[in-house]
Amino acid sequence: MDVTASVAAVETYLTEHADRFVDELIDLLSIPSVSAQPAHAGDVQRAAEWVCDQFSSAGLAGEIIPTDGYPIVYAEWTGAEGAPTALVYGHYDVQPPDPLDQWVTPPFEPTVRDGRLYARGATDDKGQMFTHVKAVEAWLKTAGRLPVNVKFVIEGEEEVGSNNLDRFLEDNRERCRCDVAVISDTSQYGPDTPAITYGLRGIMACEVTLKGPKQDLHSGVFGGSVANPANALARLIAALHDDEGRVRIPGFYDDVVPLTDEERRNFANLPFDEASYRESLGVNEVFGEHGFTTLERRWARPTCDVNGMISGYTGEGPKTIVPAQATAKITCRLVPDQDPKALTGSLRSFLKERLLPGLTIDFVDQHGAPAVVCDLHSPYMQAARQAIQAGFGTPPVMIREGGSIPVAGSFKEILGVDTLLLGWGQNSDNLHSPNESFRLVDFHHGLAASAHLWAALAEQQA
Amino acid sequence: MDVTASVAAVETYLTEHADRFVDELIDLLSIPSVSAQPAHAGDVQRAAEWVCDQFSSAGLAGEIIPTDGYPIVYAEWTGAEGAPTALVYGHYDVQPPDPLDQWVTPPFEPTVRDGRLYARGATDDKGQMFTHVKAVEAWLKTAGRLPVNVKFVIEGEEEVGSNNLDRFLEDNRERCRCDVAVISDTSQYGPDTPAITYGLRGIMACEVTLKGPKQDLHSGVFGGSVANPANALARLIAALHDDEGRVRIPGFYDDVVPLTDEERRNFANLPFDEASYRESLGVNEVFGEHGFTTLERRWARPTCDVNGMISGYTGEGPKTIVPAQATAKITCRLVPDQDPKALTGSLRSFLKERLLPGLTIDFVDQHGAPAVVCDLHSPYMQAARQAIQAGFGTPPVMIREGGSIPVAGSFKEILGVDTLLLGWGQNSDNLHSPNESFRLVDFHHGLAASAHLWAALAEQQA
Repeated sequence: MDVTASVAAVETYLTEHADRFVDELIDLLSIPSVSAQPAHAGDVQRAAEWVCDQFSSAGLAGEIIPTDGYPIVYAEWTGAEGAPTALVYGHYDVQPPDPLDQWVTPPFEPTVRDGRLYARGATDDKGQMFTHVKAVEAWLKTAGRLPVNVKFVIEGEEEVGSNNLDRFLEDNRERCRCDVAVISDTSQYGPDTPAITYGLRGIMACEVTLKGPKQDLHSGVFGGSVANPANALARLIAALHDDEGRVRIPGFYDDVVPLTDEERRNFANLPFDEASYRESLGVNEVFGEHGFTTLERRWARPTCDVNGMISGYTGEGPKTIVPAQATAKITCRLVPDQDPKALTGSLRSFLKERLLPGLTIDFVDQHGAPAVVCDLHSPYMQAARQAIQAGFGTPPVMIREGGSIPVAGSFKEILGVDTLLLGWGQNSDNLHSPNESFRLVDFHHGLAASAHLWAALAEQQA
Repeated sequence: MDVTASVAAVETYLTEHADRFVDELIDLLSIPSVSAQPAHAGDVQRAAEWVCDQFSSAGLAGEIIPTDGYPIVYAEWTGAEGAPTALVYGHYDVQPPDPLDQWVTPPFEPTVRDGRLYARGATDDKGQMFTHVKAVEAWLKTAGRLPVNVKFVIEGEEEVGSNNLDRFLEDNRERCRCDVAVISDTSQYGPDTPAITYGLRGIMACEVTLKGPKQDLHSGVFGGSVANPANALARLIAALHDDEGRVRIPGFYDDVVPLTDEERRNFANLPFDEASYRESLGVNEVFGEHGFTTLERRWARPTCDVNGMISGYTGEGPKTIVPAQATAKITCRLVPDQDPKALTGSLRSFLKERLLPGLTIDFVDQHGAPAVVCDLHSPYMQAARQAIQAGFGTPPVMIREGGSIPVAGSFKEILGVDTLLLGWGQNSDNLHSPNESFRLVDFHHGLAASAHLWAALAEQQA
């Protein structure tokens, strides 16, 4: 196979069919596949069928596989014997469009304005996912084959927790066997700065309740004679950090893989305007673990944040009680190689050891997932860099993100592979908000990058 | 006037009308006069009218006097020329009933079970206050007069800080002129141990809100880069105490009058079973400032308690946010000679100095009142001892209490008189808690003691 000649033909195909691809995407975006809303169950199903039909038209064997929730659309082309196999993950379900009255044009009547396609799901994830379907079509319709094997797992429950995905992967390990996973469901670093997200933070979550007296007590009659659960909870939470913003849970940093000099340099070289950042959040100063920059703190350092806290009387005016109990929700964002299970145990012990007399503690372990960081210099990463350079006309920056994408962890754990997070979107795309959109230029660049990716992955093998 | 014969007739009247008095109290308790909740404004007003009508039926000139908040019900009988004048203070407003789901019977559907009348306000203060109204009625309906002059000031804002009472007393010094004040809004020492409370703690109250980002932030994307208002609030609250349970607000203990050796001995001699105390509160250990007994901590040592605290997401399950803000309600109980105003200023500075970068603080000073300790040997104190001996059949013990009755300070300061704190309640009455109640036997003994008080005060003059 003459890959260079094939790529040229593929690019021509992408150009000639560019308008049709947008029209097809508009068709898909017109289906209100809101997985969170049972009233849209039929629409979610319809979107699965639509995606499956696209695979058939493109020349792949597509299949709708039922789960306990919405189905997974599976498709594959595995004719490149001996070549690597990429597994593309995406999702055809979308966030609820509310609040409806804030949309300039209706969420399920896709509209192009100023080079952007506006619709719920435009960037998250229908538009981004669709680039890979069409890039594969372009290869199959021109070269009649792909330079690598490609498998697709497109689910319909990403916006409601992907509850049936791990089970599917476990039950279909053989079918899903691959060398690398590819997900386009994140953002570029900025409008002219495509990015590869090579790291995500993990998470551990718990809920802590301190119980004191069996009911709220008059703070005058009893105050001073028993430990106050609200004061005591504050004491525990305060103990979680030292004065330099470091987390004091024993062993918390033991397994942390430090940022490499290369990473710190890379982060420092990214355009980042702290004044705009502060303004966008509405704070007059940033704050975090001493010795790290804002990007380092967000992307590559672990945290321990209270997400919610409640105790006693919270209505209007004063109420002079010693509350019977106090509760806090706490999450830690984790980095490699922190172990959510072990650290949840450490946190539990840390809190229990500091309990004031007369109190009991309920500790509910809610969920955990390890952080994921992929090798910056793996052949797959090199292929992705090349593909983006070719598709976008500019090389990607290498970034990490502070959030978690649990499916990347599932691919690592269940399938044993790294994930290439190749985001074609923008931070300004309003995902999860009214007036979600996808820049058509990013759609077309993404298409081209995806088409190049299959060639680049094949090359890396050699 | 033959006081002895009159007292006998009064006692007969109290016995004959006992059931009606309970029915009337049930009427009053059915009015949800929650002064802290604006939704109950109409009910608070209605309670004032109800009390005023009672004075008229009893034979006193009653009047509803508007204030900038809820009105004060004033009534008087001043036909005992040359005799002392007692001013009875009480309040017709009640604490919020929350948490509602912990009440066995609804808070505003008064119910008698096992000799106790259950309702919000049963003991605090509708039931106790009502004994004096009915005792006066008994004198006027039998003897046609009282042996002393009696004035009543019944307010509707005690549970929200009595913000308009001082102004009322200042504007009505002449009308309120008296020799001694009488308040029944405290507790007996125990079921068979009536008490006179000669000391009360003062109070200062505030609400603190820390504000960070302009809205809740995704804890993955932004966590670690800005100060978390919930963690930061916990840090401030934790800083309020040292490891020995002492309050760390600068100057907090400077003006504290230490307990005398005599008082410590007296407290130590009172029957107090710490095991029963722990059991009644549902805690397995007591806790407080090191170096003091439980009674000393409750009655004669200052405290700093969080009464309520809220931040971020408090619904079911996890929600991964950095909250935009966090709020705590804080009260300190004070002892002589701590100054609530000065210490509120110290608290405000203490918190502001410890603010993490990027946060702002709203500090709302809610109310304050100094502690009060009265002369154990005044003639009025002697009269009260006699009246309680007669009404309860046993002499009172002399105690202090941990709660605050700011008006006792106002009476001293504005009217120049001491206050007799004659509590008919029990510590087991659950005041400020779910299932508040008042023992009917205490209600009836209180009625009798009040009836005797007027006679005893007249005697003391001689």
